[in-house]
Amino acid sequence: MQINIGIIGYGNLGRGVEKSIGQNPDMALSAIFTRRNPAEIKPINTMTRVIDLADIGQYAGKIDVMILCGGSASDLPEQTPMAAELFNVVDSFDTHAKINDHLNAVDAKALSSGHIAVISVGWDPGMFSINRLYSEAILPAGKTYTFWGKGISQGHSDAIRRIPGVLDARQYTVPIAKAVELSRNGGELSTDSTKRHIRECFVVAEEGADTDRIKNDIVTMPNYFAGYQTIVNFISMDELEENHSAMPHGGFVIRSGQTGSDAGNRHTIEYSLKLDSNPEFTAGVLVAYARAAFRLNQEGKKGCLTPFDIPPAYLLPMSREEIIRKFL
Amino acid sequence: MQINIGIIGYGNLGRGVEKSIGQNPDMALSAIFTRRNPAEIKPINTMTRVIDLADIGQYAGKIDVMILCGGSASDLPEQTPMAAELFNVVDSFDTHAKINDHLNAVDAKALSSGHIAVISVGWDPGMFSINRLYSEAILPAGKTYTFWGKGISQGHSDAIRRIPGVLDARQYTVPIAKAVELSRNGGELSTDSTKRHIRECFVVAEEGADTDRIKNDIVTMPNYFAGYQTIVNFISMDELEENHSAMPHGGFVIRSGQTGSDAGNRHTIEYSLKLDSNPEFTAGVLVAYARAAFRLNQEGKKGCLTPFDIPPAYLLPMSREEIIRKFL
Repeated sequence: MQINIGIIGYGNLGRGVEKSIGQNPDMALSAIFTRRNPAEIKPINTMTRVIDLADIGQYAGKIDVMILCGGSASDLPEQTPMAAELFNVVDSFDTHAKINDHLNAVDAKALSSGHIAVISVGWDPGMFSINRLYSEAILPAGKTYTFWGKGISQGHSDAIRRIPGVLDARQYTVPIAKAVELSRNGGELSTDSTKRHIRECFVVAEEGADTDRIKNDIVTMPNYFAGYQTIVNFISMDELEENHSAMPHGGFVIRSGQTGSDAGNRHTIEYSLKLDSNPEFTAGVLVAYARAAFRLNQEGKKGCLTPFDIPPAYLLPMSREEIIRKFL
Repeated sequence: MQINIGIIGYGNLGRGVEKSIGQNPDMALSAIFTRRNPAEIKPINTMTRVIDLADIGQYAGKIDVMILCGGSASDLPEQTPMAAELFNVVDSFDTHAKINDHLNAVDAKALSSGHIAVISVGWDPGMFSINRLYSEAILPAGKTYTFWGKGISQGHSDAIRRIPGVLDARQYTVPIAKAVELSRNGGELSTDSTKRHIRECFVVAEEGADTDRIKNDIVTMPNYFAGYQTIVNFISMDELEENHSAMPHGGFVIRSGQTGSDAGNRHTIEYSLKLDSNPEFTAGVLVAYARAAFRLNQEGKKGCLTPFDIPPAYLLPMSREEIIRKFL
């Protein structure tokens, strides 16, 4: 018996989920749902059904877990509650400040329909969050710092592309090495993450464009670049395509804490990720939590959960005894 | 309301638990139980009751969670099931090959008495195990390697002390840096951990002892040193006390995995610990899981669990909404 998975939204993340299902023998991909014209979607496995999102209701009862692969700004706040009325669901909602609201909206639908929903699954929120939690529970006296990168920020790359005279751009978020080192050694850092990261931009300008003006538009852009140490490199379109077309990312969660009668013993817990492909790694996390959602629902549980609510053992397709033998 | 904690066994780990409870305002230490003469035990807080282990039955119903701080070889197999008849319990049972047996023995007692038991809590087994599990669930195609150290191995230090002519000794387990680096970069390593670690020994010999013979006795000792790259340093008692009296430890869990249609994208997940005091850090993990044991039992749950069975949120004394806001 396999767990039948559906995908809503077929961008980079949706494609990552399709590939990840192929690495998990206990799962099968039932269908991809899209708001675009289904005929225009070309799945990696050409046999995969592509269905108009408007027809999703016909799949109720046929799909065990629906994985939502849309964006947090406008797709997920609407799609996750809708899908939770029909299916167990997993999403990667990542607008940190709005997670409690999203949870309440999804919880209402999941409870009334009897499904499990897992929200904010990925690496941040997700694996980084879990590690922040475990580390502080274990070392209650201490400081946790999160560093992101080196990796591409889609939002910042888009912001540069909107500047007149810019043809294309990529923005890398880069943790400041000295700050990472200081954090490992128990140092006190600014809680303001703008002081712990550099923003490095690779920009393709139109022929004849005023690069000084573009550079100034970038470094002074409020919310995105102002306040950061920002490096702007102008490169050719060929160079952009050759050297900056991948989607690497990663980062560190570092907690340095103290124990002992005089707090004289120091401990450092560090969790780090180095990812060739941000969407493919995130997809792997979503798929593991889809398994957990299915198993929890099989046990009769319902409602909206986060990764904090799920015992690690639910992520693996193995018996308790096997898991203990192999991992404990 | 505070969670009332008891400690069985007052060695380095028991003292670590006493200190850790002081860092957790939702907890109070009720009593320390010992097989030694209670009058000989000097707790850090001189007001703490020290009770003969034979009288533990009088504390049933008065202590919320008992933390067992004895050894895995002979103490815990006997004490954890006994204590689980009377209390919720947490132990750090670390004989990997016998965990399933220990679980079954403790489970029977915890189920019949209506308590929660959590076994094999610490960092390995414990936090390292959790990270091995999460990493493989997320990246099903890949390799996980665990490295221990640099840190003191109590068992190996004891083995050296038993050699004639040795007054005292400390043995450090040291991961081979090249192997760690290879693992980070997705390389294939020996599954035999003897090939990934060096054993470095600091030995105080009796005056006039044959140090060549002692060195030979160490490096050829079966199960402990034979097969390892072993370094033996002879030092004075003063130097041993000055430079080697702490109990540092740590290590790494590294998973390197692949995703994508042609498995062309590589990802590395690394969890590392750098600990000034092995027993104080382990104590912090035990205390966080004592909170989880208490909360699970308050919800009416019973039986023997491992860290794999416990949702991360149970480790923290905060509401769900607060945890989401702070950590997700």
